[in-house]
Amino acid sequence: MSAVGKPITCTAAIAYEANKPLTVTEIVVDPPKAHEVRIKIVKTAVCHTDAYSLSGVDPEGLFPCVLGHEGSGIVESIGADVTNVKVGDHVIALYTAECGKCKFCLSGKTNLCGSVRATQGKGVMPDGTTRFHDKDGKPIYHFMGCSTFSQYTVVADVSLVAFDKSVSFEPTALLGCGVTTGYGAAIKTANIQKGDTVAVFGAGTVGLSVVQGAKSRGASKIIVVDLNNDKKDWSFEFGATDFVNPKELKDSEDIVSKLIEMTDGGLDFTFDCTGNVNVMRNALEACHKGWGQSIIIGVAAAGQEIATRPFQLVTGRVWRGSAFGGIKGRSEMGGLIKDYQSGTLKVDEFITGRRPFTEINAAFEDLHNGSCLRTVLDTST
Amino acid sequence: MSAVGKPITCTAAIAYEANKPLTVTEIVVDPPKAHEVRIKIVKTAVCHTDAYSLSGVDPEGLFPCVLGHEGSGIVESIGADVTNVKVGDHVIALYTAECGKCKFCLSGKTNLCGSVRATQGKGVMPDGTTRFHDKDGKPIYHFMGCSTFSQYTVVADVSLVAFDKSVSFEPTALLGCGVTTGYGAAIKTANIQKGDTVAVFGAGTVGLSVVQGAKSRGASKIIVVDLNNDKKDWSFEFGATDFVNPKELKDSEDIVSKLIEMTDGGLDFTFDCTGNVNVMRNALEACHKGWGQSIIIGVAAAGQEIATRPFQLVTGRVWRGSAFGGIKGRSEMGGLIKDYQSGTLKVDEFITGRRPFTEINAAFEDLHNGSCLRTVLDTST
Ligand SMILES: NC(=O)c1ccc[n+]([C@@H]2O[C@H](COP(=O)([O-])OP(=O)(O)OC[C@H]3O[C@@H](n4cnc5c(N)ncnc54)[C@H](O)[C@@H]3O)[C@@H](O)[C@H]2O)c1
Ligand SMILES: NC(=O)c1ccc[n+]([C@@H]2O[C@H](COP(=O)([O-])OP(=O)(O)OC[C@H]3O[C@@H](n4cnc5c(N)ncnc54)[C@H](O)[C@@H]3O)[C@@H](O)[C@H]2O)c1
Ligand SMILES: [Zn+2]
Ligand SMILES: [Zn+2]
Ligand SMILES: [Zn+2]
Ligand SMILES: [Zn+2]
Repeated sequence: MSAVGKPITCTAAIAYEANKPLTVTEIVVDPPKAHEVRIKIVKTAVCHTDAYSLSGVDPEGLFPCVLGHEGSGIVESIGADVTNVKVGDHVIALYTAECGKCKFCLSGKTNLCGSVRATQGKGVMPDGTTRFHDKDGKPIYHFMGCSTFSQYTVVADVSLVAFDKSVSFEPTALLGCGVTTGYGAAIKTANIQKGDTVAVFGAGTVGLSVVQGAKSRGASKIIVVDLNNDKKDWSFEFGATDFVNPKELKDSEDIVSKLIEMTDGGLDFTFDCTGNVNVMRNALEACHKGWGQSIIIGVAAAGQEIATRPFQLVTGRVWRGSAFGGIKGRSEMGGLIKDYQSGTLKVDEFITGRRPFTEINAAFEDLHNGSCLRTVLDTST
Repeated sequence: MSAVGKPITCTAAIAYEANKPLTVTEIVVDPPKAHEVRIKIVKTAVCHTDAYSLSGVDPEGLFPCVLGHEGSGIVESIGADVTNVKVGDHVIALYTAECGKCKFCLSGKTNLCGSVRATQGKGVMPDGTTRFHDKDGKPIYHFMGCSTFSQYTVVADVSLVAFDKSVSFEPTALLGCGVTTGYGAAIKTANIQKGDTVAVFGAGTVGLSVVQGAKSRGASKIIVVDLNNDKKDWSFEFGATDFVNPKELKDSEDIVSKLIEMTDGGLDFTFDCTGNVNVMRNALEACHKGWGQSIIIGVAAAGQEIATRPFQLVTGRVWRGSAFGGIKGRSEMGGLIKDYQSGTLKVDEFITGRRPFTEINAAFEDLHNGSCLRTVLDTST
């Protein structure tokens, strides 16, 4: 019996409070309103941004909420005026929407669509209400416009992209955040060219995906910098040419001068994939005078600031950032999926664990394990 | 009688000590060695960088030295192997050399030539010695590869550019630093396009030249921000569409939100032309999310740092800098002179005073006078 037009009761992982484990329980998911889509989530993964928001330090964090923003699934039903997907389509939820009509989308200069931003930041749908509530009718907030830690979710039509059914749900879930963020930062934000030298700070899913992007562009040197030697083999597997552990430098050496020495003057591109503001400074200062660009991807703890001497910029270094790899989720995801299918973009290799949905709290703990990249949850179990 | 090949005794302004007036006295200027050129300086102007170095806070500052880096003159003699200029040529001294052969020049990405950088920073010619000495033979340091506060100076052949004799010495002296720095930052570093919105912090020679560059590119809004209302008329004369004095904002307003409100979301380009690190931060944060770029031109006091939250960059703002406007002095100065001749680039308008060379200390004092832009010195008087 179809639930179209009716609320669905299903299992979700609720974050009731900051810094507490999630509660796997039943929630009610209302039918989609105009320009909204209800999705049956099939696979979802846990990303650091979920843990960041759960920790309570995210000033935008609202509770209770349904976290999760790396997920893929099947369109269960659509609200009025939805034309970009149809029931049965396989889709990726997008925390960076693409409406194609706002000032941002029309600029041709950014992927940061403004269409649903204000309400997304407040944990509600564009009409200001939630589609999630508990059995007593108490509303539960949305998260990043996705809320994939639920068997069913509702998202704005501009916040999803359909993909060919020949591609499975696991890699597409991962394309919803970390992999796309790193790969896009390399090939789109930085637009690395053949022969460029690159340093990547932090070899998690994001950093290793930068490495892949750099490799696909033919970078001549790809130096990974990580404090954890367990990341060495991963780094080489994804395409790094060198691995440096700052803890293993001689007393007289610092990571900036080490990198400048390794590259005869500094790097063409550096990437922060750690979220540490001191690393961000080092990444900038390791850039080549005259043209080196440093791209910040990591999300710093609330209130933290980056700093450097302005002379670093006056002498030609460029400091920029990247959100979701600069990728426009609806118009450009197809290209990434092609790269995945052709083998240029490794995605399945990031899956270091699989768990049933009920073990979601264990999946959060996996994150703190240095050898974990991504744990994928199967929402049907 | 020609002095070619012999030392010349002439008048120069010597900085014997930090934070003391210059001494106008006689010095000896040795003949140029290979790849060096001796120039008879005709006109020179005083720039803030001279005052900065004289103040003693510049860690690279060396005494005694001959300051000055905005100057033009006539080639008096050339050393061996000089092919780019000949005796009698009218030339501008360039503190940013262009050799055309180093890694930097060949990169196509920067104007920061590396050829004479190391020795220039140490106040000596490329062979490690000085061409200036006092009557007792005690060496006197060079400055920024130019040392234009002397009737005669010696520079590397890569540190000068010849110009057509139909152009006079005053405007060409000014093209040696401030005007080129601001105009180049607008048309080259930022590469402002028609319709872009621009804010310029600081309406000195540099800032007003950014305004001119923005105007020549057809910027739709050019907002000048300065604490000194005397700069209002100047700003409009050079092409500003708006003038904001931060001191005159209501208590509830800050300059960043004021600018964001004036431009419906922030600026496409902002420029720091003050050297104040707090202004640099405001300039960045007033940029439009997604694409706004802030360009640092001002030189901060030694040890000062810029700071911001990394989120500013992750959401698409770009922080960069510009030295000598990104202009390659030898290959691109001709274009600026054409813009001057066609009237697109005002230069003579910056001359707010003229003084004989003997009044050089008064010219330094002029700098602190809010309504002064440039005082030009005639080295023959
Ligand atoms: N900008 C965006 O759109 C976006 C999207 C997704 C994730 N992120 C952020 O990107 C960052 C990386 O995400 P991830 O999932 O790859 O994280 P991760 O925790 O899996 O990887 C981080 C890596 O950095 C290393 N590291 C930590 N401190 C370091 C230091 N001081 N020097 C060198 N290495 C250090 C760790 O050992 C680890 O290998 C996080 O801050 C995350 O919040 C940003
Ligand atoms: N990067 C380069 O290649 C380069 C070259 C030349 C000059 N510079 C630097 O550029 C800067 C500007 O040079 P200039 O000759 O035009 O200087 P200037 O002193 O003539 O002009 C500076 C202007 O900034 C204004 N100002 C000061 N503090 C301010 C504040 N907090 N907010 C708003 N306005 C403020 C002043 O009123 C003044 O009008 C200096 O720092 C100079 O050292 C850099
Ligand atoms: Zn949009
Ligand atoms: Zn994420
Ligand atoms: Zn060069
Ligand atoms: Zn100057």
